[in-house]
Amino acid sequence: MNIDRILAAAGRLDGHAVQTPLLNAPLLDTDAGRRIFVKAECLQKTGSFKYRGARSAITALDDRTRANGVIAFSSGNHAQGVALAAAEAGTTAVIVMPSEAPALKIENTKALGAEVVLYNRETEDRDEIGARLAGERGLTLIKPFDNGDVIAGQGTTGLEIATQAAEAGIENADVLVCCGGGGLTSGIALALEARAPGLRARPVEPEGFDDVARSLSTGTIQSNEKRSGSICDAIVTQAPGEMTFPIMQALCGPAFVVSDDDAMRAMAVAFKRLKIVLEPGGAVALAAALFHVESNDDVVVVASGGNVDAPIFRQALDRFG
Amino acid sequence: MNIDRILAAAGRLDGHAVQTPLLNAPLLDTDAGRRIFVKAECLQKTGSFKYRGARSAITALDDRTRANGVIAFSSGNHAQGVALAAAEAGTTAVIVMPSEAPALKIENTKALGAEVVLYNRETEDRDEIGARLAGERGLTLIKPFDNGDVIAGQGTTGLEIATQAAEAGIENADVLVCCGGGGLTSGIALALEARAPGLRARPVEPEGFDDVARSLSTGTIQSNEKRSGSICDAIVTQAPGEMTFPIMQALCGPAFVVSDDDAMRAMAVAFKRLKIVLEPGGAVALAAALFHVESNDDVVVVASGGNVDAPIFRQALDRFG
Repeated sequence: MNIDRILAAAGRLDGHAVQTPLLNAPLLDTDAGRRIFVKAECLQKTGSFKYRGARSAITALDDRTRANGVIAFSSGNHAQGVALAAAEAGTTAVIVMPSEAPALKIENTKALGAEVVLYNRETEDRDEIGARLAGERGLTLIKPFDNGDVIAGQGTTGLEIATQAAEAGIENADVLVCCGGGGLTSGIALALEARAPGLRARPVEPEGFDDVARSLSTGTIQSNEKRSGSICDAIVTQAPGEMTFPIMQALCGPAFVVSDDDAMRAMAVAFKRLKIVLEPGGAVALAAALFHVESNDDVVVVASGGNVDAPIFRQALDRFG
Repeated sequence: MNIDRILAAAGRLDGHAVQTPLLNAPLLDTDAGRRIFVKAECLQKTGSFKYRGARSAITALDDRTRANGVIAFSSGNHAQGVALAAAEAGTTAVIVMPSEAPALKIENTKALGAEVVLYNRETEDRDEIGARLAGERGLTLIKPFDNGDVIAGQGTTGLEIATQAAEAGIENADVLVCCGGGGLTSGIALALEARAPGLRARPVEPEGFDDVARSLSTGTIQSNEKRSGSICDAIVTQAPGEMTFPIMQALCGPAFVVSDDDAMRAMAVAFKRLKIVLEPGGAVALAAALFHVESNDDVVVVASGGNVDAPIFRQALDRFG
């Protein structure tokens, strides 16, 4: 993995992915006691950064492989990204989703033209389901993070941050990234190393699913005990990837771990101050910047997704709005 | 008024105003049966386009006049724009606001450093209050729309639309604009005439406050009977301006008029499909594109603001989410 692969992905995304804005709000800065710049990937096509990696990976396949169709496992954001990227590329997508995934994500994945196969996250083995379908139909698996072209696609977010931060006069800052398996975090870290060496990526995870934080602090890949049970469904993964972990280990600063309540509180702040809709898993980085403050230095936050069902969003406003 | 004045304003806004994205969502297009491109001015500093005109006007004052301070009348968005632009310019702002303005707008205006004077819209004469304060303190009135530098500042939105539409391959389209007194609509119309002649601005107003629609159809300035009573507080004005009306008459297509319910429904759609927070008055143009469809042609929508109190937003999600 290197910057050239990210630049190649950027070429395949050009004119398709949204160049999302780096938002700043004076009253948010006042609330936080520091300048906060928010990379609003909730405004990306399909409502999360996942479209970047999905398009990058699907457009990197050779024509014949791509024409046979793709398959993916996802609680919803990778699902939608793969579904749209496949449709744009004129091929088919099968998405294996946990049955408790947010209704909006399941509905959207179908609406984008994918075939959705639901499974029970506690009792069924998604890998077995996926392997069977892939074998029967000749589908290519698009992994959610441990795939070089996916990491390169997510890394295009980092290229944009490097340019936008320079325009805003930010030379040295932490870049807090909502982190599941580490595809976005490692991609951004690689892009920043090459293009904005004063910016340092730091993963942010929800309590109970702090596999990356523990992996970074112990130096070896650690897993989570639970597989579900956080409101931050988008970033609940079992462990960092074999490709993503070494990159994060080499390039990232220490991780943050935030509570579900802090994520919900950050959603209400984003509503009030930034006028963007965040899902809980897309708000943990903002939560870290707001509620786990180590300094008053400028900070960049990647708000990774906004695919939240209305009842959860209403709950965030009821409790913290 | 001409394009040169808008370009001059753009120079004074460069590096200060957000270049807001032109958003598109495949599933929004599916819902609507047409391609909809949304200029997300809710992501502008202070949560609405008003910052553009305020900064344009305040930076155009001579140093001594500016140093004496400014005054503005506003239900909230112009208030916040003037408050921030004044603070950035190192001067003071007094804002005369109706007492029933949304709590968030009053609170934010104060937090941005302005002195807020409340009045009763039904029983008090704001012009009298404003004239007295201006006279006593030597303040300069920054009108919300009938001011050439304000119109030029709002017109910078149109410059960006012209560039972004060209990048998206949109050559001919209506550009639907949430319209109060016509500052944004006339500024955009002027910019489009010069830079994207295939794009045509069309005002959108709430029912009961369709002064611009009636003025355009009759050819003379018409007023509204009521002064309040729409949920779309941001665009409730008595009549189009003496500067803005002739521009709209020369350059705009026919206006749309939408119900408060349609505005609320559009807010729920923007939440679900675009991940942006709109206030009712900032959602009427999207409502027109979604629910008053005259054709399946591409359409550009200006989503002008997002300063909505949480209870109103929750209500939109409860009813239409």
